[in-house]
Amino acid sequence: MLKVSQRGQDMPVSPFRKLAPYAEAARKQGKIVYPLNIGQPDIETPPAAMAAMRNADVRVLGYSHGAGTESYRRKLAAYYQRANLPVTLEDIIVTTGGSEAILFALLTCLNPGDEVIIPEPFYGTYTAFAIAAGVTIVPVTAHIEDGFALPPLADFERVITPRTRAVLICNPSNPTGYVYSRAELESILGLCQKHHLYLLSDEAYREFCYDAPYVSALQLPGAEQNVVIVDTISKRYSACGARIGALVTLNKQVYIAAFRFAQMRVSPPGLGMLLAEAAAELPESYFDESKAEYLARRDLTVARLQAMPGVVCPRPGGAFYVLAHLPVDDSETFGQWLLESFSYENQTLMLSPANGFYQTPGLGKQEVRLAYVLNQTDLAAALTCLEHALLEYPGRTETQLPAVVETAAPLPA
Amino acid sequence: MLKVSQRGQDMPVSPFRKLAPYAEAARKQGKIVYPLNIGQPDIETPPAAMAAMRNADVRVLGYSHGAGTESYRRKLAAYYQRANLPVTLEDIIVTTGGSEAILFALLTCLNPGDEVIIPEPFYGTYTAFAIAAGVTIVPVTAHIEDGFALPPLADFERVITPRTRAVLICNPSNPTGYVYSRAELESILGLCQKHHLYLLSDEAYREFCYDAPYVSALQLPGAEQNVVIVDTISKRYSACGARIGALVTLNKQVYIAAFRFAQMRVSPPGLGMLLAEAAAELPESYFDESKAEYLARRDLTVARLQAMPGVVCPRPGGAFYVLAHLPVDDSETFGQWLLESFSYENQTLMLSPANGFYQTPGLGKQEVRLAYVLNQTDLAAALTCLEHALLEYPGRTETQLPAVVETAAPLPA
Repeated sequence: MLKVSQRGQDMPVSPFRKLAPYAEAARKQGKIVYPLNIGQPDIETPPAAMAAMRNADVRVLGYSHGAGTESYRRKLAAYYQRANLPVTLEDIIVTTGGSEAILFALLTCLNPGDEVIIPEPFYGTYTAFAIAAGVTIVPVTAHIEDGFALPPLADFERVITPRTRAVLICNPSNPTGYVYSRAELESILGLCQKHHLYLLSDEAYREFCYDAPYVSALQLPGAEQNVVIVDTISKRYSACGARIGALVTLNKQVYIAAFRFAQMRVSPPGLGMLLAEAAAELPESYFDESKAEYLARRDLTVARLQAMPGVVCPRPGGAFYVLAHLPVDDSETFGQWLLESFSYENQTLMLSPANGFYQTPGLGKQEVRLAYVLNQTDLAAALTCLEHALLEYPGRTETQLPAVVETAAPLPA
Repeated sequence: MLKVSQRGQDMPVSPFRKLAPYAEAARKQGKIVYPLNIGQPDIETPPAAMAAMRNADVRVLGYSHGAGTESYRRKLAAYYQRANLPVTLEDIIVTTGGSEAILFALLTCLNPGDEVIIPEPFYGTYTAFAIAAGVTIVPVTAHIEDGFALPPLADFERVITPRTRAVLICNPSNPTGYVYSRAELESILGLCQKHHLYLLSDEAYREFCYDAPYVSALQLPGAEQNVVIVDTISKRYSACGARIGALVTLNKQVYIAAFRFAQMRVSPPGLGMLLAEAAAELPESYFDESKAEYLARRDLTVARLQAMPGVVCPRPGGAFYVLAHLPVDDSETFGQWLLESFSYENQTLMLSPANGFYQTPGLGKQEVRLAYVLNQTDLAAALTCLEHALLEYPGRTETQLPAVVETAAPLPA
């Protein structure tokens, strides 16, 4: 009999889209549905970058170099240098979104059956990449009571096996918004050096840090051999559809092998690279504006959530997500109920149940991720919906959780 | 010790780029180097499609549906319907180039360690995709004496094992230009049905058939369950850099699993899809012009090659490649010599040694692939160079080969 592969059957349905059919049905009923479920920024793609792409003189839209055009890599290297990362154009492979960079990093650093340790909750789609690459994710749990800080190193040590090849962090974190401190980064890099592991650092949200300057794993002393950066312009320039990312490493062996995977698909998207090249030249002030907007949204979101009885919400230092504990029996049931059975002034909201961000069964059942990617008026309206919904929801629970630590926890031993 | 993965080490260097450093050196010496090594068309990307992309009203370049925008899939389905393929928009997953469609097809239809049978010579990069997907390519050899027709079914039967899951064909073929007849396609589909194998059909060159109307594997009776089409706009509209392809199948299980792999990378390139959508609406007459040009180039290339003593060159029915036997000791050495040590009126050419297209060791040593992607003046000049080079080359051999069958061979038993 013809059968699809086991890995094809194992591939998860995207956790961000599980509730999509219910949202569609709600909209068909005429409800306004605020989408706080997916990290699709509403900020305008920089008009100057779009214009540069549109005006580019292209007669034949041909293949580029497998690592991306030299002109874009040069400007991207300059962008990193402005952020004090010691990167040249020869350390960069332009990829088709951050997605492809994750896949190439796993294919390059791990063999089938090898293990990568990831602090959970983590970006649910890592699971899909792990299945595609035939590798095993070993989770180490971060806790909401600690504001989702880096778990103690002892928790990592405990799960290291002869098959462990890498630790993967997302910094600032999707889904928690947590930003690792320099001390935390140094400690996890130290662990990787001690055990000869790669440190894969997903820095998709690098430009969205609100309380302190961002520290990249590639800035740490001794990062040359161990660190592989996964990056993307999707969030930075609100250009998710361009599908332009990058794999950046100073480790030449890794670079050469990753480049062979890049050659396999000949070249990254050419039109997106034109846009990215112009975006890389935008002045620093470009980020000031979008950061100020996201900061205001974060403060609004956190303040409103913290004021709701039974809700626990650490204040994240970056990205544009909060991961909150809700006083509900099951956040997936609650999310479905919001769309099917609830409305407040004919409005409701869509959120991401957090179970999709944990690998350990049972975790995240009372947590949700909210993306603050809407303007403040809509965001406030969505949070008002949530407030009313939590009071009406038949599955409301009254469990007490320990208060959350408001500042980054001191570095765990 | 930190070590890159075994698969990273096993990944082949792109066979099209092996000679690139020698070409670069030759150009630095001031030589004109005609690039017949890579299938990068010189035809202008349709200006109407480029204009539609440029003029699209995009404020936020966001993610699209994981299978591609509905509007593009609808127009692509209409394109297939005009070609008599029974395809609707729900049978299509838009991919990042044909490359990603190949990867998704392998990940979806085969488990790690499973086998896919491919007639050789084949597109060298299939090897890279097989390594990335952890599957094994089992070659069945097609012969130049038969014009690279489908090998006898008995040759396929002989290599089928319990791990065989699929047969992969490229039709029209890169690198041979051979176009399978309807009878050949029916016979290979029959074999796949008999043994419960998928038939993966790479139809990147579907619009480039010069001697007979094209037959797609998806048009055959009984194709619904077994056939998965891999397609791309790269060659069709001279838009390699757009990175827009498609996976097309009527098998819903395959579609669902492949779609999960597609969700993993969220969406295909948005700007490329805008271009592709406009291109899909180009009138049939668009192809008349480019096909007439390629046909003239094919006839020129084949006629000139066949007139060179010791050269054997079947006349291919499609794509824009010829695979020719040359009277040389080793085509890789010859290719390097052309760039390093030869010039005719300060010109030389770059070709692809055919050993990169064979998996069986030793095969293709006296064969090369030439891509007729240059205008006829440059093409003629490049062939004149080759003619002189073959007379001067110190490693010239005089082996006699059987004359090639000029028309498609009758269907082998």
